[in-house]
Amino acid sequence: MGAIGVNSRMMHLNLFLMGCGHHRAAWRHPQSSVEQLGDIRYYERLAQLAERGKLDAVFFADSGAAGNVSDGSWWYLEPLTAIAAMSRATQHIGFISTVSSTFYTPFHAARLLASLDHISSGRIGWNVVTSMFDVEARNHGYESMPDHAERYRRAEEFVQAVLGLWDSWDDDALLFDRQGHYADPDKVRSINHHGEFFQVDGPLNVPRPVQGHPVLFQAGSSEQGRELATRYAEAIYAVAYDLPAAQDYYRDIKQRVSAAGRTVSVPIMPGLVTYVAATEEDAKAKQRELDELLPAEASLRQLSMFIDQDCSDWELDAPVPTLPSMENFSGPQGRYSTILRIIQTEKPTLRQLLGRLAAGGGHCTLVGTPQQIADKMEYWFCNEGADGFNLMPPSLPSGIEDFIEQVVPELQHRGLFRSDYHGSTLRDHLGLERPGCS
Amino acid sequence: MGAIGVNSRMMHLNLFLMGCGHHRAAWRHPQSSVEQLGDIRYYERLAQLAERGKLDAVFFADSGAAGNVSDGSWWYLEPLTAIAAMSRATQHIGFISTVSSTFYTPFHAARLLASLDHISSGRIGWNVVTSMFDVEARNHGYESMPDHAERYRRAEEFVQAVLGLWDSWDDDALLFDRQGHYADPDKVRSINHHGEFFQVDGPLNVPRPVQGHPVLFQAGSSEQGRELATRYAEAIYAVAYDLPAAQDYYRDIKQRVSAAGRTVSVPIMPGLVTYVAATEEDAKAKQRELDELLPAEASLRQLSMFIDQDCSDWELDAPVPTLPSMENFSGPQGRYSTILRIIQTEKPTLRQLLGRLAAGGGHCTLVGTPQQIADKMEYWFCNEGADGFNLMPPSLPSGIEDFIEQVVPELQHRGLFRSDYHGSTLRDHLGLERPGCS
Repeated sequence: MGAIGVNSRMMHLNLFLMGCGHHRAAWRHPQSSVEQLGDIRYYERLAQLAERGKLDAVFFADSGAAGNVSDGSWWYLEPLTAIAAMSRATQHIGFISTVSSTFYTPFHAARLLASLDHISSGRIGWNVVTSMFDVEARNHGYESMPDHAERYRRAEEFVQAVLGLWDSWDDDALLFDRQGHYADPDKVRSINHHGEFFQVDGPLNVPRPVQGHPVLFQAGSSEQGRELATRYAEAIYAVAYDLPAAQDYYRDIKQRVSAAGRTVSVPIMPGLVTYVAATEEDAKAKQRELDELLPAEASLRQLSMFIDQDCSDWELDAPVPTLPSMENFSGPQGRYSTILRIIQTEKPTLRQLLGRLAAGGGHCTLVGTPQQIADKMEYWFCNEGADGFNLMPPSLPSGIEDFIEQVVPELQHRGLFRSDYHGSTLRDHLGLERPGCS
Repeated sequence: MGAIGVNSRMMHLNLFLMGCGHHRAAWRHPQSSVEQLGDIRYYERLAQLAERGKLDAVFFADSGAAGNVSDGSWWYLEPLTAIAAMSRATQHIGFISTVSSTFYTPFHAARLLASLDHISSGRIGWNVVTSMFDVEARNHGYESMPDHAERYRRAEEFVQAVLGLWDSWDDDALLFDRQGHYADPDKVRSINHHGEFFQVDGPLNVPRPVQGHPVLFQAGSSEQGRELATRYAEAIYAVAYDLPAAQDYYRDIKQRVSAAGRTVSVPIMPGLVTYVAATEEDAKAKQRELDELLPAEASLRQLSMFIDQDCSDWELDAPVPTLPSMENFSGPQGRYSTILRIIQTEKPTLRQLLGRLAAGGGHCTLVGTPQQIADKMEYWFCNEGADGFNLMPPSLPSGIEDFIEQVVPELQHRGLFRSDYHGSTLRDHLGLERPGCS
């Protein structure tokens, strides 16, 4: 355990905010926050809580469609408007918003994010995604989603146009010269972007963001996603079920970034689901309590779909029966391989499997004492598995309260996590340079 | 002057927020707020000031392009993100944002505005506009703007889709039934909008706004604009140089609304530029002080363009020379007719004309004591000229401070304006019913 020093490598931690928590049944808990999902004060309190824990940022996923409204709400307030308010209720913590490159114009995205970076005094990050679902396409004028390759070509061009717009004002363009110019016209430029998907003349109608560019997050795991991350990402949200998977991804990305000649650090932060309590038994009880809130019938129906066989009459509290191997399964591969891996590694009962799938199934899930959880996090952090974590509390606010009250002090004690903020921008927290104007 | 009673007709007043003020040279004043245009605290203080004056709302114009950056900044923080923060710094006042029907998708617009209506607990209005300028088009993927008729067809379809999305959740759709449904799936519906310009399946991913619909503002003066206002507007921002012009517009719209079978009031609020002081002489001095900040050379260059003749060597402090009549002018008509009207009515010096054109040229401009200004406002209010005003202070914050400290008490004393808020939503302030779910 290293000494605490300004130069020692520090973990990065985000609170990945999601409705009443990342466990699909969290809203069903008697004390859940479900009635508050439309109340901005709930979001402000979560941000203040995360700031008390000295976290780097609050992270928002997003979607362009309503989803299954009978089974809970994942989004409700729109992230960009919520972040404007949350940033005013806090002073240090960053805010990362997912903004899809598929449905906004680059001008709107650049402007909204730049405005937020000014409002928050430099605490904004942008998680660049390509939307995936036809149900989102059909809310925005398309019959179905463009194919994967086209979405990534579009995403890359979108990023280029947004970066160009942020750089369309030099840092020193504003003069405020009352006898002369408000801004120096030679330092505010058109970008004249004319690409395959977008035409954007520019300049932006917002001066250069406080951070130069809001921090670019990316989360791709496909080949095109990794390539996009290699070229543009400044920090990465990853999905890793266990350390070997995390290491594979971590080493691959670091190698690609270095091969591309980029000298930046690009911190990689896998998602992490934690159930924390003073004893391992109590932590398991917390997990069990949420799992038991899952409506069994609907969950079994869903599992039957995932594994392509009827499991509606399987015993909930018995071990999961043996399933066909990957080679003998013809349905969609991703989710099925996660299911096989959970069964193989964790030997769960059927109810436990349903619970795992209902709370960040493919992500690393840790259940135990603050020491046990800190041990694992430290091990990943010291062994090329992670530079930090995107925390996915199964329930909110209790899950992040547990983490901040119990795990954060343990990480701080070990010299792995800051005891206070040392800078004022999200770039400062993540140890990223402010980009010059291209 | 009527007694103050809950049933007496009350004036509506918005603060039309614009950079350092509506006078183009306001930012050049030594005490201007120009250094604060990127500071959200400036916007929050303006909203708090307007709320101290019991105004109905803060009104934001918008544009999708940067404009002439050397001569001041009209927008800087993006309205929707700024409003999220401003609404959290206030408790009663409403916020009206212009959102163009030309560049956003209806889904994004509906979602952002619905989210803001939840964040502000029902204090949002939407000023529906069609963008006009090719420079905006070229920031959003088009070579030039669609023609006027197409823009209005698009605007109408856009409004229909947004209203449909807001109504895609019934008011009582949310159940929070922990043993059953989060929302009633029968009360959350697709809208399956398939029109000439937009395809939107829905439902929205935000439950029905607090106000049912954020209040629809509109500002059209063309035939198509008036038709759109007749069918959809719940309040109108108008441009009227003098009372006859205001009355023409007012009577025409009220007649159209009534002929369309709508029984709502549709308050009409012309823009109003005021220079207020304890004496008329001091008020004129305030106007002169701003006018003298205008860079003469650039202003004369612009005027030469408007009137299609070189006026660069005209005497600034002499009366404006006689100009050709409307019939003998072949350039763009709108601005020229305003110029002729100002010259005819106000007999200004050249410098005064430049000043008037630099501060809401086509709008009613009142210069005088609180009593003089209240007299005129009351006369318009009582004679089918206006149901209220969209206040366009030449400089901010001083211009709205003057108005709130001096004119508002006079209006309150006359029983023409509220002394306190009696409701909590923008609809309450404007006396508008909450719409049922269509």
